[in-house]
Formats: sequence, C-alpha cells, structure tokens
Amino acid sequence: MAATAERVGTDDPATLADLLERVEALEAAQRGKVQKKNKMTIIAWGGDLDRIWPTTILATTAAASGMEASVFFTFWGLFALVKPDVRITGENWMQKMMSLMNAGSAKKAKLSRYHFAGAGPAMFKKLANDHQVEKPEELIATAQELGVRLIPCQMTMDLLGLKREDLIDGLEEPIGAATAIAEMRDAAVSLFI
Amino acid sequence: MAATAERVGTDDPATLADLLERVEALEAAQRGKVQKKNKMTIIAWGGDLDRIWPTTILATTAAASGMEASVFFTFWGLFALVKPDVRITGENWMQKMMSLMNAGSAKKAKLSRYHFAGAGPAMFKKLANDHQVEKPEELIATAQELGVRLIPCQMTMDLLGLKREDLIDGLEEPIGAATAIAEMRDAAVSLFI
Amino acid sequence: MAATAERVGTDDPATLADLLERVEALEAAQRGKVQKKNKMTIIAWGGDLDRIWPTTILATTAAASGMEASVFFTFWGLFALVKPDVRITGENWMQKMMSLMNAGSAKKAKLSRYHFAGAGPAMFKKLANDHQVEKPEELIATAQELGVRLIPCQMTMDLLGLKREDLIDGLEEPIGAATAIAEMRDAAVSLFI
Repeated sequence: MAATAERVGTDDPATLADLLERVEALEAAQRGKVQKKNKMTIIAWGGDLDRIWPTTILATTAAASGMEASVFFTFWGLFALVKPDVRITGENWMQKMMSLMNAGSAKKAKLSRYHFAGAGPAMFKKLANDHQVEKPEELIATAQELGVRLIPCQMTMDLLGLKREDLIDGLEEPIGAATAIAEMRDAAVSLFI
Repeated sequence: MAATAERVGTDDPATLADLLERVEALEAAQRGKVQKKNKMTIIAWGGDLDRIWPTTILATTAAASGMEASVFFTFWGLFALVKPDVRITGENWMQKMMSLMNAGSAKKAKLSRYHFAGAGPAMFKKLANDHQVEKPEELIATAQELGVRLIPCQMTMDLLGLKREDLIDGLEEPIGAATAIAEMRDAAVSLFI
Repeated sequence: MAATAERVGTDDPATLADLLERVEALEAAQRGKVQKKNKMTIIAWGGDLDRIWPTTILATTAAASGMEASVFFTFWGLFALVKPDVRITGENWMQKMMSLMNAGSAKKAKLSRYHFAGAGPAMFKKLANDHQVEKPEELIATAQELGVRLIPCQMTMDLLGLKREDLIDGLEEPIGAATAIAEMRDAAVSLFI
C-alpha cells in the first residue's frame, strides 16, 4: 500500500499514461471474449442407466456445490424424462416402433454393457442401495429439488411424437439446439454424456 | 457519471493509487488465464448415425448462430468423411479388415442401438424426412456451406491407410492431437461426441 | 506511446473519471466469472480400448504441450487402473459378478465395436505397433511420466469393493464428484469420454 501510494503520489503524467495503456490492454484482451459463469450444462444424449447415472450425479453435485446446473435431454436421453406409463406415443408405425424399443422412463434404463438376461441394471441398483448411492429416478427427483434445470429437446419430442404431458412434471419448456448451445456457451463446464 | 467525476475530480493521490491497485488486481486475475472465443469445437469420435447427427446439428446450428465452429473427425468418426465409393484402402490385411468392418461414408452410418435387421437407420431417416430434419450427409454439406471447419485426424488416417483423396472434398488439412487440443483450448464450448 | 502520453499528460479530471469508469466496467465484467487455466480435465467414463486410447492420447499430448492435465477415472473407466492380477475384489456375489465381467486393467480393454472373436483389440494394437502408436498401458505410463494427474473415483471404488492397493501405483488420492467438478471448473478444456 505505502509503496504503491508512493509510486503514484505525485501528479506524474507517465503514471497516468501507463495506467491508461494498461486499462486499454485489459479491455483489448476482454473484447469479443466469452465470459464463463459458475455453471454446468450437460447434454444428456445417452439413455442407458450408466449414462443417466453420471449425468444426474454430476448435475446434482454441481447444484449442491452452489453452481447453476442445467441438463438438456436429447435423443436417447429424452427417454429418461418419459412418464413410466407412456408406452406408444407416435402417430405412425415408425414412431410406435421406436417408442416400443425404448419404452420410457429412467426406471427402465439399461446398462449399456450389461446384456445378460437383464440382471445388470437390477444388480447395479442393488449395489447402489447397499452402498447408499441413489437410484436414477431418485437422482432426477433430487436434481429437481436442488434446482437443477431439466430441459427436454423439442426436436426429439417432435421426432418421437411425444407431447409435453407425456413427460414427467417439473421440467422447463422444451428448447432447440440453438438455445441449448446458448446454455453451454457461458457455462464453465459443458459435457456431452 | 456526476458522482464518479466528483470522486476523481481533484488531483487525489489516493485515487490514483487506488486505480493502480485495481488495475494490478485485474491484471493479476487475467495473468496465465485462457480467454474463450465465441467458438464451438467438437471431437467427433463416434461413427454411428446417432452421434453424427448431434455432431452435425450442433456444429451447423452454432455456425448459423454466428459462432466459429470446428469438428475434428477421429477414430470411428473419421468414417463419416470417407467417400462412398472407397472400400478397401489399406496396404495390409489388418487395415483391409478394419475398412471392411466400417465401410465408409455417412450414408452407411449405423444407429448404435438399432441392430434389428438394419431397420433402425432407415427408419430414423424416414422419421427425419417426415419431420423435415436433415440427413447426416446433407448436414455435413450444410455444415460446409455455413463455414463449419471439418478437420480429419491425421493419426487415424495413417492407422487406416486412408489418403487425402479417399475423403470427401472441402475438408481442412489433417491435423494431430496437439492441434486439435489447441482448437479446443480457446473454444467457449468443447464436446467429445 | 507518445499519443497516449499526450492524451493524459495534463491533470485532466475527465481522464481520471474515464479511467475509473473503464476500470469499474472491467471489474464488473469479471465479477462472478470463472477464470480458465491452461488445463485439460477428462472424465474417463468408458472402459473400452477405443475410449481409453483418445483419453490417454489427449491427456498426454496436453501435458507434452505444457498444459496441466488431469484424468478422473470413473465407472467403466476405473477398470483401466486396476492391476492386471486383480480379479475378484468384491465382498459379495454382485461385486464379484461385476468384477468378473470387467476383469480389470487396460491390457484387457475391449474395442466397443469389435466383437468378432476378440480379434479387434489385438488387431488394433498390431496396427498401432506397425504405425508407432503407443498402446494404452504404455500411454498410461507415459502420461504418469509427463505429469498427467490420474485420479480414481472413490464412489466407483466403493461400489466395486476395490481398495487403493488393487489399483496401479502412481495415482492421486481417490476423490468424489464434487472434487472432480472443481477439477473441471477452472480447466480450459473438459471432456467426458
């Protein structure tokens, strides 16, 4: 403090010129640059349990740590938001076929590498229970409680013939790719899962 | 304005010292920090249709929104850039085998979860047609038109014995991992898809 | 320089007020924003060879380019850090089952799309040998030598009943999701692989 005051204590034009130059350099470095907020945005693309898990764990932990957190559910990921009782939603055979293949809701999500008689997901959930790790549908509920913004992809909804009422409650309005990109643009952490 | 001018209206050494300190604090906060540009860089690692799709949709939408956009095609992702008529490119049996397994071009890309008699990709493309969503090869063409920089991975090309002329036109020069990292380093959004 | 000095050469209150305003604008733009370091953080989620490969290549290349690099091994990715001789680690049948299915170490990692009689990984490694591309276990060793920080996920270790001594040497202490997020928060590049 004392040393600093001494340096500028006199009415020294060089000091003013120096300060102006340094401010200009700071402004130039900032010009056109994107500033990052204390925020995490996840593109939840995968529908398997082993992807929904890290998505919800990371988003929930981020929110619990005081970060803003948003998750954009698209493609297979959207199925995690479909109500358990919604089965056939499409208006034509193709959409029905897709819906059947991915009969919705986080409860039915598969582990992408566990294909032996369906034991995988149950096993992993049992493991999680024994070790006090939350289940995906609980994590989605917890995420909502903690203020994680859950956002469905409009294009995927259109492709699959899903309506807003086919999805669980408490979601934000569906958005498109441009808005999802805007979500990521100012986020300190953006992940595609 | 008036209040501000008042505060510094006199030749007050304390004010100059204060300004200098604040400029120094700003400089210190900026020192060694990476500035982010209005840019998206995607590492296109996956070769399946359901990964090529979000890659091209996100990159194209970013470019259409005025962002710089670059996509680095590596590993399975490189096959999306192989000309449709290129089948066996390698110089030995192993490279031929790999090439056969992934017989190239975005047109042949598979959906990673649709394995029932090949109906999946056709079905999804039909769905896309019905809903005015572009097909991958159209999205790659659109991406090029919008100025998305499409960059092949040199190492993957070497591994598979692919030459520049085996890839579609309009690509940037192949680059390695170090240059791909430099692409991501100043991008506001970096995704591995 | 001369021009700048001239502009502020006199004791002009307007200039001081202007400087103060510009410093305040710079401070406001910076307030609450996350600064990015010259650092790459990878969430290594996948256990297949074709994911371990880009993870280690990117982290090693980043470190070689002077960036700080850290890799958080979670879920299937953790198996890349398990010692080759560790087979059954769990305390109950479920953990044993999972361990068996993913019998550990980078040497045994599979290519996610190569399922024909196990020829894929051997073939790709042979390809890599012929073209002087390092193998995953060598890349992990190289990464350690270059100072890449390799960090196991505590929750995954707990889930699978793995102890610190079941993992290879030279790792950092296991961390949870909150610390992994802190790793990504100030990294210029964060990827989920």
